[in-house]
Amino acid sequence: MGKTLYFEIQEYKERLRKTKQSMNEKGIEVLIVTDPANMNYLTGFDGWSFYVHQCIIALVDQDEPIWVGRGQDANAARLTTWLSEENIKPYTDDYVQSLIKHPMDFVSDVLKERGYDKKIIATEMDAYYYTAKCQERLVLGLPNAVFKDGTNIVNWVKIIKSDTEVEYIRKAARIAEKAMETAYNSVDEGVRQCDAAANVYHAQISGTEEYGGDYTAIVPLMPSGIRTSTPHLSWTDEPYKNGDTVILELAGCYRRYHCPLSRTMIIGEAPQKVRDLAAVVAEGLTNALNNVKPGMTCEEVERVWANSIAKSGFIKDSRIGYSMGLNYPPDWGEHTASLRPGDKTVLQPNMTFHMIPGIWLDECGVDISESFRVTKNGCETFTNYPRRLLEK
Amino acid sequence: MGKTLYFEIQEYKERLRKTKQSMNEKGIEVLIVTDPANMNYLTGFDGWSFYVHQCIIALVDQDEPIWVGRGQDANAARLTTWLSEENIKPYTDDYVQSLIKHPMDFVSDVLKERGYDKKIIATEMDAYYYTAKCQERLVLGLPNAVFKDGTNIVNWVKIIKSDTEVEYIRKAARIAEKAMETAYNSVDEGVRQCDAAANVYHAQISGTEEYGGDYTAIVPLMPSGIRTSTPHLSWTDEPYKNGDTVILELAGCYRRYHCPLSRTMIIGEAPQKVRDLAAVVAEGLTNALNNVKPGMTCEEVERVWANSIAKSGFIKDSRIGYSMGLNYPPDWGEHTASLRPGDKTVLQPNMTFHMIPGIWLDECGVDISESFRVTKNGCETFTNYPRRLLEK
Repeated sequence: MGKTLYFEIQEYKERLRKTKQSMNEKGIEVLIVTDPANMNYLTGFDGWSFYVHQCIIALVDQDEPIWVGRGQDANAARLTTWLSEENIKPYTDDYVQSLIKHPMDFVSDVLKERGYDKKIIATEMDAYYYTAKCQERLVLGLPNAVFKDGTNIVNWVKIIKSDTEVEYIRKAARIAEKAMETAYNSVDEGVRQCDAAANVYHAQISGTEEYGGDYTAIVPLMPSGIRTSTPHLSWTDEPYKNGDTVILELAGCYRRYHCPLSRTMIIGEAPQKVRDLAAVVAEGLTNALNNVKPGMTCEEVERVWANSIAKSGFIKDSRIGYSMGLNYPPDWGEHTASLRPGDKTVLQPNMTFHMIPGIWLDECGVDISESFRVTKNGCETFTNYPRRLLEK
Repeated sequence: MGKTLYFEIQEYKERLRKTKQSMNEKGIEVLIVTDPANMNYLTGFDGWSFYVHQCIIALVDQDEPIWVGRGQDANAARLTTWLSEENIKPYTDDYVQSLIKHPMDFVSDVLKERGYDKKIIATEMDAYYYTAKCQERLVLGLPNAVFKDGTNIVNWVKIIKSDTEVEYIRKAARIAEKAMETAYNSVDEGVRQCDAAANVYHAQISGTEEYGGDYTAIVPLMPSGIRTSTPHLSWTDEPYKNGDTVILELAGCYRRYHCPLSRTMIIGEAPQKVRDLAAVVAEGLTNALNNVKPGMTCEEVERVWANSIAKSGFIKDSRIGYSMGLNYPPDWGEHTASLRPGDKTVLQPNMTFHMIPGIWLDECGVDISESFRVTKNGCETFTNYPRRLLEK
């Protein structure tokens, strides 16, 4: 079959090696990976099949993991992973969204068949799509196993990107710039919000002349007017009005690697309060970025921001950024390091973050963000787009 | 604040009443609803915030449920739900993707504060986003509660649509037709797959002149060539070639209500095998639709299809459809009734299904589908699009 692999097999094997090393350190013999991004990271597996239960089983003493999924998705495993046929284990369709059989029963059977049912098994307890029922059925099906929490084991391996991964994020950045420019050009008085959003999607997916874009793990978040008082609303079909604030939180995505980018725009002249808020956010963001360097902790980066805005009187009580990269819906964040008080993660070269120090007041909000890579002595921002309030 | 409610408050209250009735029948006093579609169904809550833990708590002896979510999303609850301020309970940002605190600890605290910590509590054990960790922390935090499995309680209430819901699906159907026509017009020899996908997205989101579209719960699935041998792959940036088969599984979405629609197209002349396969699928689909009527069971619908294709020699071993409607990523299916052997659900008026009897062979596949509503004496298909292989 005509395989599509986006990295050298050696790179996948290196990722697996690091994962197994982490498993060894934690005394874990079997890791059941259900996060779609982690499944992709270890094997290349791609497809919108995470709406049914599926997993990659990493065995600490084996060179290849096992893919388990729905029968009709087995060809996707054959086309998009480096796994050999013996490690592609499809279940029949009567396991799908059934009230009688559960796909994790099949996973138990696979582990029994391979002799791994009496081992120390870790599951991604807090990963999307790994439901409470999955754990219940697995524990029931494997009475002789010892269970551990394997949340974020692969995520922490993922936090430092390879040069190819960085290259993919750079490509995503070109798409993000194009999507933001499209948003700026499309949003205007009298234009329906849905028509502006449609143009943004078009830009995200068509990508550049050299390469296309993928669907992003979060839809374009484009609240306007009163809806900017909360960050996760999207468009409606109402037309924009003169004076509307519009928050644009977008991303470009290339081969599932993301480059997020946020800006706030005003249709017409901005009220002084919004201008002031934007100036504070942009200055705080720039100060924080200018201070990023390897060896610093995540909370120290947040501290630079907090000090910068302290004098303005505005308050920001949520984290200002997070590690990001390879992902599937519903999140492009990696759930490891966050730029916030208490996070002692030490920055290292080729970690990649989205720094998004938005401030939301009761009736409006301002978001201005940058995605960046930690370099040998500072940081590289991925996109090149005016770092300020956009007035139109 | 300027609230946006898409249904009369009375309709939300009626949904809650039916949910509480089902809770009563099952001896459940507290239902913790984490499925974003179920949260929306009961309260109107909207927003792309399901990437952090959040829930609606339905109390069997209370007239209003409680929303629990992230602080910055509380304004989304104020803007999109009918809940009063006292029932909007935001948690602070240090609960978000933290290794120390978990949002379900906060949910436990809310239940203690309201005096519901010694009750019979049900959780949606197998719902997306309700992770194994959620259940573990909740059980730990509420040692005096009795836990039950509340998976699909709201889903089964949702299965029969109101007239307003049906109206929304009809509006989604107009968008689905437009998206399919756009796909047919865009896919052609030499055109990059991503550019065709971009046009499809544009059509889905801009909607019609009268109303806009929402993001769909599944991205446009558009595998072509060898990738049609599996149903859940999407586009790449390769150009289409003459002779390519392209499977188009799309939907329109209006106010989170979906109308899915699938067709298979061929660029150039179709091989006889694909034409034969498509004729079998279209005939089986039409036979099954013609026989749908209230009182019939789901498995009986599947039987009509199975009998229809039996003579052709092709085999289809997965379910041929499922209940659908209101949803969020990653699925527009409702996880209740499936058109497949063993499903004894009795069809009733205003149930809505997506019948998608695709057949995938080793090297190609054909999908032709219709979304329909069960009527008083038969069924109404939502879209009007040629039910056959599309050759171009």
